[in-house]
Amino acid sequence: SSATETIRATLFPGDGIGPEIAESVKQVFKTADVPIEWEEHYVGDQVDPRTQSFLTWESLESVRRNRVGLKGPMATPIGKGHRSLNLTLRKELNLYANVRPCYSLPGYKTRYDDVNLITIRENTEGEYSGLEHQVVRGVVESLKIITRQASLRVAEYAFHYAKTHGRERVSAIHKANIMQKTDGLFLKCCREVAEKYPEITYEEVVIDNCCMMLVKNPALFDVLVMPNLYGDIISDLCAGLIGGLGLTPSCNIGEGGIALAEAVHGSAPDIAGKNMANPTALLLSSVSMLRHLNLHDKADRIQDAILNTIAEGKYRTADLGGTSTTTDFTKAICDHL
Amino acid sequence: SSATETIRATLFPGDGIGPEIAESVKQVFKTADVPIEWEEHYVGDQVDPRTQSFLTWESLESVRRNRVGLKGPMATPIGKGHRSLNLTLRKELNLYANVRPCYSLPGYKTRYDDVNLITIRENTEGEYSGLEHQVVRGVVESLKIITRQASLRVAEYAFHYAKTHGRERVSAIHKANIMQKTDGLFLKCCREVAEKYPEITYEEVVIDNCCMMLVKNPALFDVLVMPNLYGDIISDLCAGLIGGLGLTPSCNIGEGGIALAEAVHGSAPDIAGKNMANPTALLLSSVSMLRHLNLHDKADRIQDAILNTIAEGKYRTADLGGTSTTTDFTKAICDHL
Ligand SMILES: CC(C)[C@H](C(=O)O)[C@@H](O)C(=O)O
Ligand SMILES: CC(C)[C@H](C(=O)O)[C@@H](O)C(=O)O
Repeated sequence: SSATETIRATLFPGDGIGPEIAESVKQVFKTADVPIEWEEHYVGDQVDPRTQSFLTWESLESVRRNRVGLKGPMATPIGKGHRSLNLTLRKELNLYANVRPCYSLPGYKTRYDDVNLITIRENTEGEYSGLEHQVVRGVVESLKIITRQASLRVAEYAFHYAKTHGRERVSAIHKANIMQKTDGLFLKCCREVAEKYPEITYEEVVIDNCCMMLVKNPALFDVLVMPNLYGDIISDLCAGLIGGLGLTPSCNIGEGGIALAEAVHGSAPDIAGKNMANPTALLLSSVSMLRHLNLHDKADRIQDAILNTIAEGKYRTADLGGTSTTTDFTKAICDHL
Repeated sequence: SSATETIRATLFPGDGIGPEIAESVKQVFKTADVPIEWEEHYVGDQVDPRTQSFLTWESLESVRRNRVGLKGPMATPIGKGHRSLNLTLRKELNLYANVRPCYSLPGYKTRYDDVNLITIRENTEGEYSGLEHQVVRGVVESLKIITRQASLRVAEYAFHYAKTHGRERVSAIHKANIMQKTDGLFLKCCREVAEKYPEITYEEVVIDNCCMMLVKNPALFDVLVMPNLYGDIISDLCAGLIGGLGLTPSCNIGEGGIALAEAVHGSAPDIAGKNMANPTALLLSSVSMLRHLNLHDKADRIQDAILNTIAEGKYRTADLGGTSTTTDFTKAICDHL
């Protein structure tokens, strides 16, 4: 990709601290001369007073047209029938894979200093089918749906990711000893795809055992691929190992190569507008977005600036034990560029 | 309970290392003058050559009659139609709550030294319903079942446990933001029971967030109660925090006060018969069994002897980095009694 060509990308700043951390990304991209022009749309819990809608057609069209976007945290609108905006976006844009790199941040001490893994979560089905009903009073059931199509698609993404990112191993996480048909189908699809990638080691790990191994020795893992709910659980567990959701990037991949990067932490209304928020998760997500666009030079430069700023420790936001404002921390990153 | 009265208890040594670690328990109980007479039955993957059965009526009857038992690891019989013996026992004996205390072992260093929590897992329904089918080719579904009866029962057990064991807080773990009906019913039942225990603090924590908090700061938790699959995942995660399944006790509680304590690790066929196995999980499970019988003096004495032996570090089995045999480690515990 040529350095002079401008790329349009959608930006959903979101709610709460969203606008402040989005501002940080804009600042950093400007300083790093990233050839991106933002197309900004509001999606969040403030409904349009005339229509009561919270998600416009224009917002969705913007991502579909640009094929790439970045989103901040969105609060769930209060009131009947509204479900999580995150889920609505995943569904509407068919964002089938959620990719979360998770690595120990140099200089930011946790109990682990050897984390370097990628979780890849199936993002459209499984326990998130929304199909539930009461059978009789006091007896309810939820349906977990696994399809061959969605399983092959996310497995293919995971192996392709491993191959193109110099990763050596893909672990499929499951509970097929209990859910032989659903998780069994998921594994069958992973095995089929694994055959096409003989250079990548393939293994299968039961979810309970996986969680035990992750907390004992996360260095055992490389790329993990799994059904929706396990991905939800394991990606948060992994984020915890390195310090929490404020530090981990995330990127959603859709059909036809759409990518919507996102900070997966909450909108933190308690500190919104106070110039206290940590923009790291959104910044690292924007780096994921740049990598998706093959802008690796820019991605490397920005990632290094973020990590070096945190490693130095002079400028850190309150959640990391520092006293910096969002703008000071952002300025420090820009100074590192 | 009087010290002279003999209590009959069922013992299933199980497969692989099972007989060796069961021998260790027998030794320790004898040395500590525990007034228990073992009624031993074989349940495991060696089928009766005449009937192909692996679970006798006598074995089940023994637990039903004695109302208390201890089980070692059991391998799953190979061949069509056999499911995990653990699941079969849970089902046949209606073992509705699985209780796993998890605490940092003094002197045995992991990344955590501040773990002291109890997971209480619903053990009969949820994702373990066994109800699955293929809808059309390439589309399969599993049913998760939650009932008011089983949810109230396990919630009641958890609050009663908290109250009688000097615990202050019960956290219900769920994903009701996604599974509003099933996990929603589970939470509703927990709330109902919580009302009857105003002295116990009650909170609700989403499973993904719970896993993140557990790896960041396990000291935040006290007693956790949850549906079946979350319990499977979280109890293994917690075991990982303190060193693994070789060190954590487990006890299954059934209707009418049946208790079947068990080591939840595998049968480790690779080291079976080599006098190398670590009996700690089964020993601590036997301590849980004694507490269930209100034999707290014996339980305290044995638990102290186990923990002191590990803390001293002179006698440790290979899995804990030592070179002791099972019998030497057991003897060291007996010497501490
Ligand atoms: C907010 C919630 C619906 C969502 C999920 O469960 O997927 C979140 O936990 C996530 O991981 O993005
Ligand atoms: C062996 C397996 C079926 C079992 C379970 O999933 O319950 C095990 O993981 C456990 O925790 O006892």
